[in-house]
Amino acid sequence: MNNRNFKYPDTAAYNCIINYFKSKQIKLEDIASITYKMQLKFIPELHEDEAMSAVVDVLHKREVMNNAMVGIALDQLASKSELPEPLQSIVENDAGVFGVDELLAEGGISGIYGKIATTNFGYLDREKHGILKRLDTVKGEGVNTFLDDIIAAVAAAAGAKLAHKYA
Amino acid sequence: MNNRNFKYPDTAAYNCIINYFKSKQIKLEDIASITYKMQLKFIPELHEDEAMSAVVDVLHKREVMNNAMVGIALDQLASKSELPEPLQSIVENDAGVFGVDELLAEGGISGIYGKIATTNFGYLDREKHGILKRLDTVKGEGVNTFLDDIIAAVAAAAGAKLAHKYA
Amino acid sequence: MNNRNFKYPDTAAYNCIINYFKSKQIKLEDIASITYKMQLKFIPELHEDEAMSAVVDVLHKREVMNNAMVGIALDQLASKSELPEPLQSIVENDAGVFGVDELLAEGGISGIYGKIATTNFGYLDREKHGILKRLDTVKGEGVNTFLDDIIAAVAAAAGAKLAHKYA
Amino acid sequence: MNNRNFKYPDTAAYNCIINYFKSKQIKLEDIASITYKMQLKFIPELHEDEAMSAVVDVLHKREVMNNAMVGIALDQLASKSELPEPLQSIVENDAGVFGVDELLAEGGISGIYGKIATTNFGYLDREKHGILKRLDTVKGEGVNTFLDDIIAAVAAAAGAKLAHKYA
Repeated sequence: MNNRNFKYPDTAAYNCIINYFKSKQIKLEDIASITYKMQLKFIPELHEDEAMSAVVDVLHKREVMNNAMVGIALDQLASKSELPEPLQSIVENDAGVFGVDELLAEGGISGIYGKIATTNFGYLDREKHGILKRLDTVKGEGVNTFLDDIIAAVAAAAGAKLAHKYA
Repeated sequence: MNNRNFKYPDTAAYNCIINYFKSKQIKLEDIASITYKMQLKFIPELHEDEAMSAVVDVLHKREVMNNAMVGIALDQLASKSELPEPLQSIVENDAGVFGVDELLAEGGISGIYGKIATTNFGYLDREKHGILKRLDTVKGEGVNTFLDDIIAAVAAAAGAKLAHKYA
Repeated sequence: MNNRNFKYPDTAAYNCIINYFKSKQIKLEDIASITYKMQLKFIPELHEDEAMSAVVDVLHKREVMNNAMVGIALDQLASKSELPEPLQSIVENDAGVFGVDELLAEGGISGIYGKIATTNFGYLDREKHGILKRLDTVKGEGVNTFLDDIIAAVAAAAGAKLAHKYA
Repeated sequence: MNNRNFKYPDTAAYNCIINYFKSKQIKLEDIASITYKMQLKFIPELHEDEAMSAVVDVLHKREVMNNAMVGIALDQLASKSELPEPLQSIVENDAGVFGVDELLAEGGISGIYGKIATTNFGYLDREKHGILKRLDTVKGEGVNTFLDDIIAAVAAAAGAKLAHKYA
C-alpha cells in the first residue's frame, strides 16, 4: 500500500550509493573524468570541476538514486546467489538479451536528462572509457552487471547537463 | 562478465512468472479481461479469446519476462525484508516518488509495444480495473509494489497488439 | 551540419508556443487547472498558483519547447495540407496507430520529468479533463492531432514536479 | 478528430521512405552493412543476407514507418525553408540541444526493439560508420538533421533483432 506519510530518505539513499561505489574503488572523480573527456571536444573551455559538480548534482536526483539503488541491490543479491532462479543465472551471466541493466541506467538515470544523455549513454556503454574499462574486465569480484551501466548513465547524464549549460 | 555461451532459459522464465501470478490468485484470464474491456470500445468485434492470446504472446517475449522477473524478485525480497536499506523501506512503503516500478512496467514491458501501450499503461495505472483493483487494496499479504504495475503493463501491451491488428 | 555557433533561441521558442496556444484559446491557467485537479487528491494543501508556476517552469525547458514546437508545426502544416503523403492523411485522420504525437508528448515532454509524469500523461490522455475535453471535440478548426497531447504532457509534467516537491 | 474508418496506408508509407532513401543515394544494403559489421563481433556465424532481411523487417513496422516519415518530412520542409520560426533555424543548424531527431529515432524506431537497440543506436550515433559517415559530412545538399538518426536507428533495431535471434 502506498504510504503517504513516508518521508523519502534522501541522505541515506545518497550515502548508500556513494559507499557502494567506494567499496568498488570508484571515486566520483573517476566518473567526472569520463564526463569531462566526453564533452571536451564539444566544449573546449570546459573545466574538470564543472564535470565533478554535474556528477554530484545528478547523483542527488531522486529518480537517479532510486534506479541506482535497485541496480546495486540486484548486483549485491546476485553476488550472494540470493536472487530467485532463473533470474539469478541471467544476472550472474550478464546475458546479452537481459536489458534490465540498460533500462534502469538509460531509462531511469540518463533518460531524465533528455535525448543527448541517452545518446551519450549508448556511446559510453559500447566504448568503455576510464573506470568503465576496469569494471568491464574485473573478474572474480562478485557480480557487476548493473554497476557499469549505472556509472555510464551517471557520466552520460552529467555530460548532457553540461551540454545544455553551454548551448 | 558477459557469458556468450549462456543460453536464455525461456521456459523457466515463463513458468516462474506464471507460478508467481498463481500464488497471488491471478489468472491470465483476469489480465485478458482488462485488455478486452479496455479495447472493446475501439474494436467492437473483438473476442475475449483474442485478448487472451495477445496476453500469452506478450508474456513469452524475453524483454517482458526479464522485467517481470526483476519486479517479482524485488517484491519477494521486500516481503522477506531482504533488500538493503533504505531501498527496503522505499519499496515496502511504495513511496510515490520511487518510479522504478513504473519504469520496469512501462519502459520495459508496455514500452516495447509502442506508444499506444504506454498510454494504455498510464490509464490502467490510475484507473484500476478488475484484478488491479483487488491488488491495490489487498493488505497484510506481503509487498505488491511491482506486481500491480507488471499486470497493468502486460494488459496494456496486449491491448496495443490488438489495436495494431485491427488498424 | 551541426553548427556549434548557433545560439538557442529560448525567448522566441517560448513565445512561439504561447502564441499558438492563445490562437487556440488555450490559457496557461487552463493547463494549470488540469495539473491542480489531478494532484489535489495527493496533495491536499496544494495551491493553484503553485500549479501555475510549475506549468510555466515546464514550458521554459528546452527539451519541452523543442518537442512542443515540432508538434505544433506538424499540426499547422497538416491544417494547410502541406505535409507529404501519406503522412498528411495519417496526421489529418489522427490515425490510432500513428503514435508520434504520443511520443513527442510522452517521450519528449513528460518523460523528462520521470515516470510519475509518464503515468500522469497516460491517464490524462484517456480521461480528457478541462481544456483537453474541449480540444478533443472541436471540429472544423484545423488539425489538432499533436496539440491535445502536448497540453496533456505539459500538465502531466507539472504534476510530477509538484509530486516531487511535496514528497 | 480520430477517424476510426481510416485504413493505415502500409504500402504507401514503405514506398515513401524507400524512395526518399534512394533520392539520397542510400541503399538498404548500406544500412544492412552497418548492422552486419556491428553484430559480427557478437555473432561470428552471421550472414549479410540475415542483416538485410532484418533491415527490411524493421522498415515494415508501422511505428518505424511513422517516425521515419515524420523525420523525413521535417528534413524536406526545412530544406525548402517551410518550417515556422524559430524551429526552421533550429533544424537547419542541427542545434546540439534539439533532441527531437534522437527522440524519433531512438524512442520511436530503435526503442521498440528493446534496450539493446537503444544502446546500439547511441553507439552508432557517435561513431559514424559507413553511410552514416557520408551523411554526416555532405554539405550543400539540403537539410539531413533527421536522416542520419533514422538510418542509425533502423540499423540499430535490425542489430537487436539479430541479437535476440541468436541468444
